[in-house]
Amino acid sequence: MLSDQLIKSIIEKKSPIVVGLDPRFDNLPLSIKEKYLDLHGNTFKAVSGALIEFNRGIIDAIYDLVPAVKPQVAFYEQYGIEGMIAYKDACDYARSKGLIVVADVKRGDIGSTSKAYSNAHLGRVSINGTKLSAFEADFATINPYLGNDCMSEFIEDIKEYEKGMFVLVKTSNKTSGQLQDLKSGDDTIYEKVADIVNAWNDELCGESGYSPIGAVVGATYPEELEILRKRMPKAIFLVPGYGAQGGGAKDVLGAFNKDGLGAIVNNSRGIIFAFEKSTLGYKEAAREAVLKMQQDINEALEADQKKYW
Amino acid sequence: MLSDQLIKSIIEKKSPIVVGLDPRFDNLPLSIKEKYLDLHGNTFKAVSGALIEFNRGIIDAIYDLVPAVKPQVAFYEQYGIEGMIAYKDACDYARSKGLIVVADVKRGDIGSTSKAYSNAHLGRVSINGTKLSAFEADFATINPYLGNDCMSEFIEDIKEYEKGMFVLVKTSNKTSGQLQDLKSGDDTIYEKVADIVNAWNDELCGESGYSPIGAVVGATYPEELEILRKRMPKAIFLVPGYGAQGGGAKDVLGAFNKDGLGAIVNNSRGIIFAFEKSTLGYKEAAREAVLKMQQDINEALEADQKKYW
Repeated sequence: MLSDQLIKSIIEKKSPIVVGLDPRFDNLPLSIKEKYLDLHGNTFKAVSGALIEFNRGIIDAIYDLVPAVKPQVAFYEQYGIEGMIAYKDACDYARSKGLIVVADVKRGDIGSTSKAYSNAHLGRVSINGTKLSAFEADFATINPYLGNDCMSEFIEDIKEYEKGMFVLVKTSNKTSGQLQDLKSGDDTIYEKVADIVNAWNDELCGESGYSPIGAVVGATYPEELEILRKRMPKAIFLVPGYGAQGGGAKDVLGAFNKDGLGAIVNNSRGIIFAFEKSTLGYKEAAREAVLKMQQDINEALEADQKKYW
Repeated sequence: MLSDQLIKSIIEKKSPIVVGLDPRFDNLPLSIKEKYLDLHGNTFKAVSGALIEFNRGIIDAIYDLVPAVKPQVAFYEQYGIEGMIAYKDACDYARSKGLIVVADVKRGDIGSTSKAYSNAHLGRVSINGTKLSAFEADFATINPYLGNDCMSEFIEDIKEYEKGMFVLVKTSNKTSGQLQDLKSGDDTIYEKVADIVNAWNDELCGESGYSPIGAVVGATYPEELEILRKRMPKAIFLVPGYGAQGGGAKDVLGAFNKDGLGAIVNNSRGIIFAFEKSTLGYKEAAREAVLKMQQDINEALEADQKKYW
C-alpha cells in the first residue's frame, strides 16, 4: 500500500518532508530564464523549457534526501499547454528518481466527473481497449465540498493502482476558517470532514498502521493539528504552511503521532527559491535548505520524544 | 460587464441555456472515433482529434441558439496534454463563434495559488513583460471551501478583463448535502456561501441588475433554489442537473427571478449525446435537443408568469 511505502521512505531517509515544486517563471535563476527566452522569445515554450530544466535540477539535488515532491498544478496551468507539459515532466521525472509524487490539484466534482479527475491523476483511461495514464502521480489532493461521492470515486483507483489521496480538512490560508471553522452541533466543519477521512482509514489501512487516505492540515493552525491528530490516528497528514507561510518546526509537532510518524511537512518556496537568499547555486541552496529543515524538524521531534528513526 | 452581456444574449436568443461540452471518447459517433483511431491508433492524439471535430460540430450546430457553452475540464484532463489541447480548442472555437465560455474547472486554493488559476482561466500571465493567456474562458467555476481569499483572487481579473465566476453554493450531486446542508446557527453552510456571493454582488453589479459573480445551484434541489434565489437576488445562477441528472423544467423555475432572468440551465449529455436516442446525425440531434429544451423551459417560465422576452 502506498502509505506503507511513504512511511518506509520517511524512516529510511529520516525525512518527513515533501518539497513543493511551485516554480514561478519570474523567480527562476536568471541564467535559466535568459537561456530559454533567447531560444524561444517571450512564449510559453520558453517558460516550459525553463521550468523543466529548473525542476529537474531541484529533483536531482534533493531526491536522495526526501520521500516525496508536490507539484502545484496551478503554477503550470497558468502557462497553458506548454505549462502542462512541464507539469507532466515534473511528475514523470520525479517518479523516475523513485520519489512519491503528490499532485496538488485540489480537484473534486460530482461522481462521474470526479472519476474523470481520478483517471487523469491516479488511474488510467481506456482508449478503444488500451489503458493509458494522463498525468500519473501517486497521491492527489481532493476538495471535499461536494461530499462523499466526489471523494469515493478516487477510491477504486487508489485500490487498483496503489495510489492515495489527501483530503483538504483544514487549510493553511488566512480565511480557511470562514467555512471550515463553522460549528455544526458540537463539531466544526473541518472535524466533520475529518470523520469522513477517518471512516475510510478504518476500511483502508496498511501494515504500517497508516492509510493511503490522508488529510491536508495547515501548520498555521497548530491547535487544530493536535485536535485532528487524535480524530484521524491512521491518516497521514500533509502539512502545508511551514516556511514562507509562517509555520516553524514547533508548529508542526502536533501533526505527528507518538511514534513520530504520520505526517509529511511541505516546503515549497523555502527550498526551491532558497538560492535567492544564498550565495550558492539554486541546486546547492535547495539541498542545503532541505538538510536544514530536516535537522530542524527531527530535533524538534526528538525533543518532543517522537523520535521515529 | 460580462453579466450584462450574458443577460442580453439570453434575451436575444430567447434561451437561458448553457450547453455542457463533456465529451467522453467512448460515446462519440462511431464514424468520428474510427476516423481518428485509423489515423493515430489507440492514443491520446486520436482522442484529441476526435474531441476537436466533435465539439466543433456541436458548436456549429447550436451557437446561434444559446448564449453559452460549458466545457468540463475533467473530461479533457483525463486524456493528458492532448486532451488539454482539445479543451483549449473548445474554448477558443466557441469564443470565435460569439459564445460565452464557462470553464467548469471548480478550482480554488490559497491566495497566491488561486491567482495562478485565475491567470490560467480568466486573466493573463506575464512572460518577461509580454502578457499571454493560457486557457481563456469567460466565466470559471470556483470551489469555496478555502474561504474568501481563494475566491477574491479572481476578482481582479474579473474587473480588468470583463470576466466572471460561478461559486459552488449548492451542487447537484447526491451527497452534496453532507457538508453543504449542515446547519451552523440558523443557516446552512450553503447559505453562508450564498451570503459571501451576495456581498460581492452588492459591490460588483452590471446595468442589467445582475453581477458577474454568480452561483452554482443544482436543479436537483428545487426548494433550495427558491431559498437561494431570495438570498442572492443579483446573482446569475448556473443550474446543473437538468436532463441526465433528473431535473426537469419545473424543477428549475425557482432559479429565475420574477423578471424571468437570472439563471442559465446546463444540459450536457442530453444535448451532445442526443443522437444516441435519435435517427438524426449528432449535430442535428443536438440542435433539436436544444430547441426542445428551449421550448420546455420557456413554456414553463411563461406559465409561471416569468416571460422575459
